[in-house]
Amino acid sequence: MSTPVSSAIPAAVRRLKALCPKLSALSTEAKNKALQALADALRTGALGIAAANQKDLSAAEASGLAAPLLARLKFQGVKIAQAAEGLESVVRLPDPVGRTLSARELDTGLELYQVTCPIGVVAMIFESRPDALVQMVGLALKSGNAVILKGGAEALESNRALAELLHVAGVTAGLPPGWMHLAESREDVQALLDLNDSIDLIIPRGSNAFVQHIMRATTIPVLGHADGLCHLYVDGAANLQKAIPIILDSKTQYVAVCNAVETLLVHRDIAPYILPPLKQAFDELTVEVRGDPATRKFIPSAKEAFEQDWETEYLDYILSIKVVESVDEAVAHINMYGSRHTDGIITENRATAEGFLNAVDTANAFWNCSTRFADGFRYGLGAEVGVSTSKLHARGPVGLEGLVTYKWKLYGNGQIVAPYAGEGARPFTHRELPRSVNQ
Amino acid sequence: MSTPVSSAIPAAVRRLKALCPKLSALSTEAKNKALQALADALRTGALGIAAANQKDLSAAEASGLAAPLLARLKFQGVKIAQAAEGLESVVRLPDPVGRTLSARELDTGLELYQVTCPIGVVAMIFESRPDALVQMVGLALKSGNAVILKGGAEALESNRALAELLHVAGVTAGLPPGWMHLAESREDVQALLDLNDSIDLIIPRGSNAFVQHIMRATTIPVLGHADGLCHLYVDGAANLQKAIPIILDSKTQYVAVCNAVETLLVHRDIAPYILPPLKQAFDELTVEVRGDPATRKFIPSAKEAFEQDWETEYLDYILSIKVVESVDEAVAHINMYGSRHTDGIITENRATAEGFLNAVDTANAFWNCSTRFADGFRYGLGAEVGVSTSKLHARGPVGLEGLVTYKWKLYGNGQIVAPYAGEGARPFTHRELPRSVNQ
Repeated sequence: MSTPVSSAIPAAVRRLKALCPKLSALSTEAKNKALQALADALRTGALGIAAANQKDLSAAEASGLAAPLLARLKFQGVKIAQAAEGLESVVRLPDPVGRTLSARELDTGLELYQVTCPIGVVAMIFESRPDALVQMVGLALKSGNAVILKGGAEALESNRALAELLHVAGVTAGLPPGWMHLAESREDVQALLDLNDSIDLIIPRGSNAFVQHIMRATTIPVLGHADGLCHLYVDGAANLQKAIPIILDSKTQYVAVCNAVETLLVHRDIAPYILPPLKQAFDELTVEVRGDPATRKFIPSAKEAFEQDWETEYLDYILSIKVVESVDEAVAHINMYGSRHTDGIITENRATAEGFLNAVDTANAFWNCSTRFADGFRYGLGAEVGVSTSKLHARGPVGLEGLVTYKWKLYGNGQIVAPYAGEGARPFTHRELPRSVNQ
Repeated sequence: MSTPVSSAIPAAVRRLKALCPKLSALSTEAKNKALQALADALRTGALGIAAANQKDLSAAEASGLAAPLLARLKFQGVKIAQAAEGLESVVRLPDPVGRTLSARELDTGLELYQVTCPIGVVAMIFESRPDALVQMVGLALKSGNAVILKGGAEALESNRALAELLHVAGVTAGLPPGWMHLAESREDVQALLDLNDSIDLIIPRGSNAFVQHIMRATTIPVLGHADGLCHLYVDGAANLQKAIPIILDSKTQYVAVCNAVETLLVHRDIAPYILPPLKQAFDELTVEVRGDPATRKFIPSAKEAFEQDWETEYLDYILSIKVVESVDEAVAHINMYGSRHTDGIITENRATAEGFLNAVDTANAFWNCSTRFADGFRYGLGAEVGVSTSKLHARGPVGLEGLVTYKWKLYGNGQIVAPYAGEGARPFTHRELPRSVNQ
């Protein structure tokens, strides 16, 4: 682990880049056959994986790793079986590569197709959970990308055993040798982050602090989210029978996740009616309330909320509450303090709801439902590559299509530009074509 | 111009950001009405614009600006009329905002819509041509974005007159005051590049060196391309009657542009047949050839090509030529030295062509036609926002759709996540819906 191998990374990435043409040309059948082979190998190799994982667990236990982290690190038995099933579910997803997004004749015999293709070399940097390695390898393979993986030091034995098993199984099933690569040392991370010429996308998986560190340390595009500072706005026209369960679910159904609500905005007209019963429910669920002065009029026991509270993702049984004058003030607050992840409105007024959904600068804009629905599996995306709070490329929960880009393919028969330029230029026909004819 | 006003930029951008909800909610009719008003104002204000432009021209002439740059700076008469027509052509483009990309029922009464929306605050930084200001304002308006513009110092009077005229015309037509903003000082550029919290996208327009500088100086996403190092590969199965005109057009139809070819790769089997006649044509067109040793066997007068030549975008009557053993070697060369802009193959073998188009890592992959076709207008995109060599968000020529992103809108009726989680979880229906029903 202390061997200085960071110089090995540029060479490994070059090899992956050189394999991209082969990987992008793999047929759907070839990819699905390989995915099934990976799943089978996981099952037949489960004992070996578990043994390697046990080494990591023993070392982690000896070093005093906390129990929840030990639980995340454990990858044996049922978890291995679930990872194999996960790979099989990727087999059933449609191939994201080779879809025709547009097709247009520029002139007779000159046809333009906009077609999806793999992004290229994708680096995945993740903490603890070895399950993440299996999932990412499956998604990268199905989307025709070359993948380089770097896991946490505490899972090194597990990741090494998994990577070797999957690599061999893939090669046996017909993939080119070296189709995936595991980076092992801490120095490797910085080496990866510096390769902005040859790595096309980085996917970090781990704590907010971890993702934030990655985002700050590279100029390579990062698919992910550092913060999930989500809001609910209770409009004056809200139905309390819906509002209270939605607020409680959004806050407490699972507090440690990015799509849990952190700040509640309440219209002043409804504050006297909703805040007292909410307070009662929060007490039962041990939710601490921090409120602005108007909130504390109705919840006198609430702590005072400071500016810093509007900027804090608690990930805990804590909720900040602010009373607002209007939906516009709620939108302005969210657009200033939110992390562009998930923000909802509770109202019976459809026009107010539509205005809010359009005006709020967020990936997931919700009406009358819990923020906790913001999730790739709940959205039916089949597999979740990640959640993105970037506005470009992919936004919100990202499925397999987040791992592809497109290229423009122009099919000619000797055409040159000169006749289409200058005086008396030949016009283009620009006629839409049925998709996928010429491929 | 020397006033230190960079502190004004964060405030101006905050004002633009606060207007985003209003701008994103503008109806297609409201936007088209405003666009038409801008076009009308350009026509009625043409003399005033020309007078301001004349001040810039006189100052530039006095300072010894080169003739081609003076020509680019000139914005009077016909050019103003063309800019007005350009705005009217944007009126006719479909509204890129509010398109439903997907629609899915998650459960009865819980419906998910993926809908396009503006990106937010877009900064355009451009050199010389005042036409660029008008075009960018029109595209930003149609896509519902707030735009901040920074032009070159030599066009300050023209840009100032244009910005004031367009701003007033827009407000008169119903847009909110402050809907666009002109930044004026050189310090403003760095202030813009630093605002990665509030500017969502930067579009630079100018020389390669200028765009490269912008890309290196900011962590905000940049839509553009620094280099256009394009290749043509002449396969062994090429038809010389097609190949030679395509090569000449790609190199010489306009040498100073990003989609002109810079390096020619020739299969060794066809080198003896194509290189001598090519040499003759190049001599007539005064194209300088730099070749590898194999090329110089057939074109003895060619200069020697060095490693550096494979990395150089000449933008001039110069072409580097390399003889290769196979289509795979051609692809490997392009994927190593190319700028992912436009790369083509000339062959009569369809399977070879398809393999090349898939394997080459480029935005525009062409078969049997000139690289010069890589252009938003030739592609029929209606308006060109720019050409992107990034693989994410938008790739190749980018039309109006490059100025929008999407959000997920979830319409519920009180649904919470708890029933869908844990043991005995209620299943999702995940039923595809007809698009645009619930909006």
